[in-house]
Amino acid sequence: MNRDDAVALDRTDPLAPLRDLFDLPEGTIYLDGNSLGALPRTTAGRVAEVVTQEWGQGLIGSWNTASWISLPQRVGDKVARIVGAGQGEVVIADSTSLNVYKVLASALSMAAADSPDRTVVVSERSNFPTDLYIASSLCRERGYELVLVDSPDEIEGLLDRTAVLMLTEVNYRTGYLHSMASVTAAAHEHGALVVWDLCHSAGAVPVDLGGADADFAIGCGYKFLNGGPGSPAFLWVNPRHVARFEQPLSGWMGHAAPFEMSPGYRPAEGVSRYLSGTPAVIGISALECGVDTVLAAEAYGGLPALREKSLALTRLFADLVAARLPGFTIESPLDDAQRGSQLSLSVGDGAYAIVQALIERGVVGDFRAGPKNSTQPDILRFGVTPLYTRYVDIWDAVDHLVAVMDNEEWRAERFATRGAVT
Amino acid sequence: MNRDDAVALDRTDPLAPLRDLFDLPEGTIYLDGNSLGALPRTTAGRVAEVVTQEWGQGLIGSWNTASWISLPQRVGDKVARIVGAGQGEVVIADSTSLNVYKVLASALSMAAADSPDRTVVVSERSNFPTDLYIASSLCRERGYELVLVDSPDEIEGLLDRTAVLMLTEVNYRTGYLHSMASVTAAAHEHGALVVWDLCHSAGAVPVDLGGADADFAIGCGYKFLNGGPGSPAFLWVNPRHVARFEQPLSGWMGHAAPFEMSPGYRPAEGVSRYLSGTPAVIGISALECGVDTVLAAEAYGGLPALREKSLALTRLFADLVAARLPGFTIESPLDDAQRGSQLSLSVGDGAYAIVQALIERGVVGDFRAGPKNSTQPDILRFGVTPLYTRYVDIWDAVDHLVAVMDNEEWRAERFATRGAVT
Repeated sequence: MNRDDAVALDRTDPLAPLRDLFDLPEGTIYLDGNSLGALPRTTAGRVAEVVTQEWGQGLIGSWNTASWISLPQRVGDKVARIVGAGQGEVVIADSTSLNVYKVLASALSMAAADSPDRTVVVSERSNFPTDLYIASSLCRERGYELVLVDSPDEIEGLLDRTAVLMLTEVNYRTGYLHSMASVTAAAHEHGALVVWDLCHSAGAVPVDLGGADADFAIGCGYKFLNGGPGSPAFLWVNPRHVARFEQPLSGWMGHAAPFEMSPGYRPAEGVSRYLSGTPAVIGISALECGVDTVLAAEAYGGLPALREKSLALTRLFADLVAARLPGFTIESPLDDAQRGSQLSLSVGDGAYAIVQALIERGVVGDFRAGPKNSTQPDILRFGVTPLYTRYVDIWDAVDHLVAVMDNEEWRAERFATRGAVT
Repeated sequence: MNRDDAVALDRTDPLAPLRDLFDLPEGTIYLDGNSLGALPRTTAGRVAEVVTQEWGQGLIGSWNTASWISLPQRVGDKVARIVGAGQGEVVIADSTSLNVYKVLASALSMAAADSPDRTVVVSERSNFPTDLYIASSLCRERGYELVLVDSPDEIEGLLDRTAVLMLTEVNYRTGYLHSMASVTAAAHEHGALVVWDLCHSAGAVPVDLGGADADFAIGCGYKFLNGGPGSPAFLWVNPRHVARFEQPLSGWMGHAAPFEMSPGYRPAEGVSRYLSGTPAVIGISALECGVDTVLAAEAYGGLPALREKSLALTRLFADLVAARLPGFTIESPLDDAQRGSQLSLSVGDGAYAIVQALIERGVVGDFRAGPKNSTQPDILRFGVTPLYTRYVDIWDAVDHLVAVMDNEEWRAERFATRGAVT
């Protein structure tokens, strides 16, 4: 395999035209779409229209005339097509953190009613921290014990006393991909509910919430859905649960008739009860442009085709690392069935500085510190977004990494100080 | 008083130049800035810069290079100047509804620790519904009774058993303005904490949270702060309380060191612990442009000058209604000290249709239904924003209202059906 082979793969890649949906900076190899997706070409124009026309000219009337009021459901319906949910089952709202709070609170209310003897919430110690912080807060409030496992193998043994199992389908550090169908089935068999965090899977791997008969799910708008920095998040509830409970963040947009202005709360039908405050019109409008880039892939085979390319890209990356970078350890599963849309590496020393040296060369991955007081290593993380990542990007990225190591560029003083966000 | 007098008042209005800070549609008299503030001239350009440059070109690096990570605090510091808070005491986050949840939860935790015998939360039945929905949810969770009063006079008698008094400084329906200083002092004297909702006051009336020694406050970004539809909200906590409690929506951005990625939550110092998820970068950037329009008034006498003009505008409005529209009742206090920045009217019949007929004539106010099962009337609501509302706008608005009534325009069939948002 040489660079020409990579270029040839791009030339015959049926998904290659999708890259044109994005405005990518010249001279950058962007391998961080799993942290912040790239800018779709339509977003700037659409946001400008929302700001200058809908807001500036339409003013308050745009809640009706531009249908701002139904944005959370309308864009939710688009996300539903990406995560295997039905129409009317998904809303866009707030942030991942807040949506975790809403669905976990509902799941605990359900568990308290159906299985009051179960007092444990199970998650992974390597889950994304915000999920754990929210879970910890809710467990304290509701009198549950939060048990964190260090390996997925420990989960099944806990299920008989588990009220709620809360997992992120693709691990943010390693890219480990759970089997949603089999984990959900095992949990249900043992009487536990499952909350799925789809932050690192929605838009990158085929998700089938309905097929898995999952209970609750939430996910991020600004990673593989390309919604922009701090984009609103999404939330799904299995239709067979959705009418059973109110969620505690019961703001007026989740009311059955917000403009009745009644002092008493009456939850909306269906998943709209998971809305809280006034929807972030500009943010959801930007998110819609991002979601549309994923839906554009439907004409090219959709998520199965994106997945196939994503696996080919990370497999190529892993092969090149194994061949050319013996000092690095691949922290992502080599088994395709267990690997999300990223490749994570560790190295004896200097992970942060190596990432910075790569960025200086125009190769943008990111650094994730090994959690304090853990034995998990620091990670160099490289996300691939099959909508715009090319085979030659992977070849070039590895080539730059080889150069950074061979020239010891990462030892430069300027890479010693960490930014606010690392 | 005739139209020429109104034009003359505008000609000598020292605040008149501030209107040029906004892009207002031709031919519209916009009296709904208390629901959605108008578009500042700088917003479209700033949002385009954030989208195309900071996101599109800077990508993930902009968390550091464009200081996205400190936006909630940086714009919070600007809001602080508008609400009488100190630097470092305000953050921008989430929605009003969610911020009510955070501060009321903290206030209840404080009350439980300091006055465990107090089991009542007091608010007004006419408070904005989302505040009541959130309070009701929290009261149920924590075992408190939510008592809603029908008149501010009933509050003092309840204070001896009140844990938390939660009030909106300016009532969204009537524009009634509480005296923050004296209500807060009375509550404290009786051992109760006070949560202030500043949605209809921030940017329109001088607010002095520090001077009143209030306990907690939250407020809206998209009304008098001109942040745009669904703009993020703000949150303030008295520095003497801020370190005492965690808030339950404890997402990673409220962690002392989010990028340590540690599985255990450790709250940030100060008000930053009230952040939850990833900040809405585009929304906060738009909000900053809106906040800057209020800060621009500092060169013209600041909030006291804005307040003086606002009162003159609503006084003129009330005088003209009294003189020319005998069928209407003024629902806002006529006492300047008790009136926010709006004038609310009621009428025997047809309030919704009258508002629609006015909108057709280019006069944009809004309709607020009398809450179901209440004796409160339907309201025609007219907000004045002293940054851009002119005296002649008030004169013309009343003139149009007279015409709508004289011609019975509101009886037209096309005004019978209500939109999704009314």
